[in-house]
Amino acid sequence: MKEISKLMDFRPDIKVLDATLRDGGLVNDFYFTDDFVKKLYRTNVKAGVDYMEFGYKASRELFDAEEYGKWKFCKDEDIRAIVGENNTDLKISVMADVGRCDYKTDILPREESPIDLIRVATYIHTIPAAADMIMDAADKGYEVACNIMAISQAKESSIRTALEILGQTPVSTFYIVDSYGSIYPEEMARMADMFLETAEKYGKKVGIHAHNNLQMAFANTAEAVGDGVDWLDATYAGMGRGAGNCAMEMLLGFLKNPKYKVYYAFQFVESEMQKLRDEGIVWGYDLQYMMTGLLNQHPREAIAFTKDGRKDYARFYQELTRLD
Amino acid sequence: MKEISKLMDFRPDIKVLDATLRDGGLVNDFYFTDDFVKKLYRTNVKAGVDYMEFGYKASRELFDAEEYGKWKFCKDEDIRAIVGENNTDLKISVMADVGRCDYKTDILPREESPIDLIRVATYIHTIPAAADMIMDAADKGYEVACNIMAISQAKESSIRTALEILGQTPVSTFYIVDSYGSIYPEEMARMADMFLETAEKYGKKVGIHAHNNLQMAFANTAEAVGDGVDWLDATYAGMGRGAGNCAMEMLLGFLKNPKYKVYYAFQFVESEMQKLRDEGIVWGYDLQYMMTGLLNQHPREAIAFTKDGRKDYARFYQELTRLD
Repeated sequence: MKEISKLMDFRPDIKVLDATLRDGGLVNDFYFTDDFVKKLYRTNVKAGVDYMEFGYKASRELFDAEEYGKWKFCKDEDIRAIVGENNTDLKISVMADVGRCDYKTDILPREESPIDLIRVATYIHTIPAAADMIMDAADKGYEVACNIMAISQAKESSIRTALEILGQTPVSTFYIVDSYGSIYPEEMARMADMFLETAEKYGKKVGIHAHNNLQMAFANTAEAVGDGVDWLDATYAGMGRGAGNCAMEMLLGFLKNPKYKVYYAFQFVESEMQKLRDEGIVWGYDLQYMMTGLLNQHPREAIAFTKDGRKDYARFYQELTRLD
Repeated sequence: MKEISKLMDFRPDIKVLDATLRDGGLVNDFYFTDDFVKKLYRTNVKAGVDYMEFGYKASRELFDAEEYGKWKFCKDEDIRAIVGENNTDLKISVMADVGRCDYKTDILPREESPIDLIRVATYIHTIPAAADMIMDAADKGYEVACNIMAISQAKESSIRTALEILGQTPVSTFYIVDSYGSIYPEEMARMADMFLETAEKYGKKVGIHAHNNLQMAFANTAEAVGDGVDWLDATYAGMGRGAGNCAMEMLLGFLKNPKYKVYYAFQFVESEMQKLRDEGIVWGYDLQYMMTGLLNQHPREAIAFTKDGRKDYARFYQELTRLD
């Protein structure tokens, strides 16, 4: 059983990463106004958030730039138009997906870029490709994290092997990514232990990126903090694909380090996130996502259910559980 | 760390109690239609729920029957109009609040009543009054549980003393009630351990009634199951005061005992709970409840904020945290 002190005290090593533009961008195809992004940036600075992720470095060969907002591609000049020289304590992150980005050409040397951190997102079966991207980014001078997605469907033996491979790269942080929102806190405790074991061996940190299908995103993040996980993803109002993520306003309210100021998060949610909802952008916990979470499935069918405006939840559950 | 088997297997001792009419009644002043209550009853029977709580046995001296629906008072004949002889496996429960009911006169002998279980609700400082109510109900032939409310504000030493007093009564179950939705899963694990220690000494069971202020109602309930807590409260769509409760559809989806049939819960939420929302009845997670949960406060100011249709969350947080 954990010690009470872990809830009462704080670890200075904890880092909070705002993924609103990146995971939230999956909801609105990355169409955020510059006004929104600037306010988000200023909020993160004031609230004491450590990293702000602007979006993906997606391939402009594979994806049509006409079909997405600019944060799908995160050109350095677009980031610079928001942050200038970024003379703040807030660091800038972008995500690069294995197989979906032209990292050799699109990620510039660190000294030419406003970006501080490259997060490589991978599935368990594409770890060698992720390792190549990590080397590339580290060689260019970046801090690098690696997000292992859909971890609830990976076998422990595969996870151990993946972490051993990553441990030998210059990555600084291994991320547990509960893409399907299927993990219970007691499973998260076991997962964190497994990650931390290899992380400590190689001098790495562990992070968590949670989804809210079972209303466990915050619970799992709080659990992971108690287990020794240091890097914490959150998004304002929990905006993110499907059921969304751990809400920044909950996380900052929970963390005890006085540098975090939850008040600014409340302000931003009240004024800016509510506007997005009023515009008809839909995310967050609902039965269809809970069902895919319970069943440890990708939420794509639940997202389609939402898009189609369906409300026949019981029938949807029958569809999901048809075994023929 | 808990064993994997606790999530994979099931304990036959687990009991699920539907508190929709009772905690949900706090949202709509207990005005449920007979049609709704009959459908709820049939759903509980089909879904394998163990107990259905119809509401409170509130004093008709203290409360004006004109101002509330009938489930605030749960007259035996009103229950019988729904369940007849209740020739099912579903047992019937009502709640009696310390200081708010005329239990000596209003609770009839068990053999004259459709009720199986009396749940005595108490704060930590009214345990002796609760003990008297427990004796009365047990003498009349009922199974009795005791719900200790606002447990997040009680000292461990007070809780231990309270449980020692209750241990010596004929109560069958001690309930951990997180009235303010302020407890994190790792605190719940410690709380459950404390309750279970005394429960085992006196041959009692432990229950959990969670609130969703921090989106922890389900997480805490799942945590408690893993810790050895057997009695689990839930409400359909999480309907309950303020941020609401652990959702029945999540709980039944989580529990592994094949007697529980989550499909009927989905059907009921889709058809009946949605209707209540469409009628303008409001409950569930929102920022104002999250704030009172974070601050370990009674939600009354958050409920007023909701009733007044306020949306100025940041200012509300300032009001809650004013120390002058």
